[in-house]
Amino acid sequence: MIDKIKHLLIGPPLPTHQLADNRLNKLRALAAFSPDALSSIAYANQEIYLGLVVAGSAGLLLAWPIGLTIAGLLIIVALSYFQTIHAYPSGGGSFIVARENLGTLAGLIAATALTIDYVLNVAVSATAGVAAIASAFPALWLYRVELSLILVALITLINLRGLRETGTFMAVPVYVFLIAFFLMLAVGVVRLLIEGPGSLSANAPLPTQELSLYIVLHTFATGCTALTGIEAMSNGVPVFKPPESKNAGRTLIAMAALMGALFVGSIGLTQAFAVVAGPDETILSALARRILGPGLPYFVVQFSTLLILGVAANTSFAGFPRVAALLAKEGFLPRQLMGLGDRLVFANGIVVLSLVGGGLIVIFNGDTHALIPLFAIGAFLAFTLSQTGMVVHWWREHNSRRDSRWLLKMFANGLGAIVTAVTVGVVAISKFAEGAWITIALIPMMVAVFYRIRAHYRDVGRQLTLRGLPPSIKPFPAPRVVMPISGVHRGIVDAIDFARSIANDVTVVYVEFEPGTGERVRETWHDWFPDVPLVIKPSPYRSIVEPLLEFLDETDLLHNDGQQAAVVLPEFVPARWWHSLLHNQSASLIKSALLYNRRNRGYQRVIIDVPYHLRR
Amino acid sequence: MIDKIKHLLIGPPLPTHQLADNRLNKLRALAAFSPDALSSIAYANQEIYLGLVVAGSAGLLLAWPIGLTIAGLLIIVALSYFQTIHAYPSGGGSFIVARENLGTLAGLIAATALTIDYVLNVAVSATAGVAAIASAFPALWLYRVELSLILVALITLINLRGLRETGTFMAVPVYVFLIAFFLMLAVGVVRLLIEGPGSLSANAPLPTQELSLYIVLHTFATGCTALTGIEAMSNGVPVFKPPESKNAGRTLIAMAALMGALFVGSIGLTQAFAVVAGPDETILSALARRILGPGLPYFVVQFSTLLILGVAANTSFAGFPRVAALLAKEGFLPRQLMGLGDRLVFANGIVVLSLVGGGLIVIFNGDTHALIPLFAIGAFLAFTLSQTGMVVHWWREHNSRRDSRWLLKMFANGLGAIVTAVTVGVVAISKFAEGAWITIALIPMMVAVFYRIRAHYRDVGRQLTLRGLPPSIKPFPAPRVVMPISGVHRGIVDAIDFARSIANDVTVVYVEFEPGTGERVRETWHDWFPDVPLVIKPSPYRSIVEPLLEFLDETDLLHNDGQQAAVVLPEFVPARWWHSLLHNQSASLIKSALLYNRRNRGYQRVIIDVPYHLRR
Repeated sequence: MIDKIKHLLIGPPLPTHQLADNRLNKLRALAAFSPDALSSIAYANQEIYLGLVVAGSAGLLLAWPIGLTIAGLLIIVALSYFQTIHAYPSGGGSFIVARENLGTLAGLIAATALTIDYVLNVAVSATAGVAAIASAFPALWLYRVELSLILVALITLINLRGLRETGTFMAVPVYVFLIAFFLMLAVGVVRLLIEGPGSLSANAPLPTQELSLYIVLHTFATGCTALTGIEAMSNGVPVFKPPESKNAGRTLIAMAALMGALFVGSIGLTQAFAVVAGPDETILSALARRILGPGLPYFVVQFSTLLILGVAANTSFAGFPRVAALLAKEGFLPRQLMGLGDRLVFANGIVVLSLVGGGLIVIFNGDTHALIPLFAIGAFLAFTLSQTGMVVHWWREHNSRRDSRWLLKMFANGLGAIVTAVTVGVVAISKFAEGAWITIALIPMMVAVFYRIRAHYRDVGRQLTLRGLPPSIKPFPAPRVVMPISGVHRGIVDAIDFARSIANDVTVVYVEFEPGTGERVRETWHDWFPDVPLVIKPSPYRSIVEPLLEFLDETDLLHNDGQQAAVVLPEFVPARWWHSLLHNQSASLIKSALLYNRRNRGYQRVIIDVPYHLRR
Repeated sequence: MIDKIKHLLIGPPLPTHQLADNRLNKLRALAAFSPDALSSIAYANQEIYLGLVVAGSAGLLLAWPIGLTIAGLLIIVALSYFQTIHAYPSGGGSFIVARENLGTLAGLIAATALTIDYVLNVAVSATAGVAAIASAFPALWLYRVELSLILVALITLINLRGLRETGTFMAVPVYVFLIAFFLMLAVGVVRLLIEGPGSLSANAPLPTQELSLYIVLHTFATGCTALTGIEAMSNGVPVFKPPESKNAGRTLIAMAALMGALFVGSIGLTQAFAVVAGPDETILSALARRILGPGLPYFVVQFSTLLILGVAANTSFAGFPRVAALLAKEGFLPRQLMGLGDRLVFANGIVVLSLVGGGLIVIFNGDTHALIPLFAIGAFLAFTLSQTGMVVHWWREHNSRRDSRWLLKMFANGLGAIVTAVTVGVVAISKFAEGAWITIALIPMMVAVFYRIRAHYRDVGRQLTLRGLPPSIKPFPAPRVVMPISGVHRGIVDAIDFARSIANDVTVVYVEFEPGTGERVRETWHDWFPDVPLVIKPSPYRSIVEPLLEFLDETDLLHNDGQQAAVVLPEFVPARWWHSLLHNQSASLIKSALLYNRRNRGYQRVIIDVPYHLRR
């Protein structure tokens, strides 16, 4: 039945040989990898506004220069990643680039930063999407946690269905958003030319703080979240149709141009119209209302913002499972994250991302603004490490004389590394107390866990090697068998038969809870199985496991062959799942005690499960 | 480690022979069985006030006559149960009395009603206790759900430690409460004599509805919750020290007298002082503040109310597990509810009660007033069935000429039956839409589930009988063995050895996810185990289970002996629990598929688990 529900929700399993078909063309790839980057304007603009409005009109006047600075940063970072895509056609995520050029530790730090970033992107995008629609329908503010969670659940399901379907599904909202926003900006420019600019000193609320360098840096730091998501494409190069690098590079340039235009355009118009927002509205919603009025076009813009932000969360679902699978392949994460699910996607990674992202939404009560300080650190740390790695890469290329324009390329990536490193510093310092400390503390902890996991896999590998093991030449004696019973009934007959088919030495044990019951069992026993010895073990503390373990240890000691008795367990299998609620789980209890209980000296005990299927 | 935590919280296990020692003397029994009944005044007074205040002073004037009516009801019900205790010295809960005299169905209805009642009592008492303390500290209203849940968790732990400790622990709050309240009532009477009565027409808020018969019946219906809990003692007779019936009867009379005095006293003083309560205060808190002023004595009274209500929830923890165990013994509930836990209490029943009660608190958002309509139905339905059963009981006694005063006794119980039946009707009708329908709908559903469960146990019993089974005389041939492997490594060596010790026909199966890996496994395999045949099954859909099941079915068909192959599973057992997160759970998956997958025709397949314990 679980299988049926699963098939209904995510579709039937796909065979492995279909894997190569799931490639994306440029339009689909833009839809799959860009929404995070494009939609960042929703929260970046909001953060810039919230950061500056405390200083009144004097503060808000700085939105434009800060926006231009961030746009400059965007150009530098985009160029850096364009180079990465061409240098790493098989996928140059920050993890790979940092690892190959700067060593394992740097690679892991980058991977950790990226992982945190992906998870936060899910939470930030979902909550910002709900904020966009709640700006239009204020009654929804009350349910923002629930609505955000529903959004995440939907995206999870769509992703579990498989990558290509994801691309198709996601393409529509992305293009709707682009059309709606560029139309709005065009209308805005026309209205601006006709009506002339607004006056910030008239509209802005009174300042509550004086304008300071701290406020400016603070605002810049959170505004930098506009760049998050730009790296996704470099990770996903192998998913593009061939020629992969060329297609990915062009798509990246297109995306960066669209991002820049949207960001600079919306910030510029906000300032030109001197738009301010109330407590229950985002600044982008206030801008749209100012340009389009309160009618249908406004609602279309808000709805398309919700959609692209919903889809933006999807960027993480495309990126995170791939990074997790890479790490798992190297032994830094549980290897279950490597396995392709029924639909040829890394299903476990998708589920993990969904759960952690949903958890963040609940913990931070669906508030985008509270999540942002944790967010920028991860993204910019990954940028810095990746760009630094690229600098080393070009230096090595130069030494091996493979590329003539190495100096120019090294300079470009070097510039990227320096400006993103400065940004990390600004974010870390100005946002430390507000939440950046969580990310900063988490990164070393996660790196430590990665190493710990790899150490475990290496331990296991060493324990599993056959090298040096002498071929076992001794004959294999038939086992001794001990079989616990709960009474004399039909359910143990098959077990007794099986036990006698594999061993001559079979002992049956009855654990007696209430004094006296054992004798009654013994009488029936001798009627039915006179040739099999029965032992009765009293259990004063009403435990079924302890007396059995004691008996096994005692009898093992009596036999000098050093061999442990195998345990035959008769086990009921109920006809319906809910019936198992009506039975003691004695067989399961005994099994897990035998498997995991270290108390008994040698614990390599064979467990033989003989099921007895109830028919109704 | 789980064991250690368990021992720390609830103490080490107790041997079965200590069971008989855990008897209660009268003072302890009063503390264990009375708090529900005594503390009912907290919510009953509140319901009477809330019911009448809508009709302003004209309504509140009726509090006194309604209170006296309920006190009359109390006397009748107490006398009825006094007789039950003596007629059923081995415990005469509603279930037993109704079942013995009115048949199984009536017994089950009574048991269901009582069960619902016990669960609701946990939720109502915990939330009313929190309301009492939040009346004194209004900031706590915000956290009433959390505080109620903490209270329930505490009581659960205390009960899991065992009955006698429960009695000791609970005695203190009960007697503190009694002393505090009777002192308060005494102070109240003195102040009343000095100051004279207050004026309701001056104090009461303006009526929002006109006084009507509906309001009066409505108020009476919810005020009847003052009687809930009075039946607990009749269920618990065997827990008293001998002579059980005499002690239990006397304790019941003492309890009823205390209940009546508290209820009539507090209602009377409320009316005499013309006390009214604001929205964030209970009427009992308002009364205490009126009598004692806002100083320390007032806080003592409120705190003792919290305590006794917390302890009142405990009455359910004494009663519910016992009723559940009784039902389980008859096969109407899962038999796990019958098992005595480590501390000689019905631990599973305690846990179930705690979870369901906690769930109700969350669902009803910690609001006592919303829970009350569900509450009274269950209690009074159980009263009615129990009293009706007693009428039949005395009639039978008369026919067997064992009791000369049968007519008087029958009359007493008959009166009880009639007045409680009328009350059920009043509650059901006047509170139907507010929640009584839930209880009314739940009772037949639960009774149906009870019958369904018993039918299952009877089915199982029939399937397990050995009667008519011919003794198996055919010799037991050695099994065929199939063994799936994940690769050639140290972890499968023991399994191969064991398989060869019990069978000559051993086949090893490798499920191949990626084409080509199988050939590599085959090469290593032949180096190490040249004499054991290896089969490679491709798995295009990356499932480990399906190809294995297919192979088993195919090979079973090839063998004409009708015997199914046994499956030997090599299973890693990691050294630490968290390591198991790092490995595929293939062995568990295969095991559950073999046990529960009905697709294969004959599914009685033996599973042989050969553990390989990782050392680190």
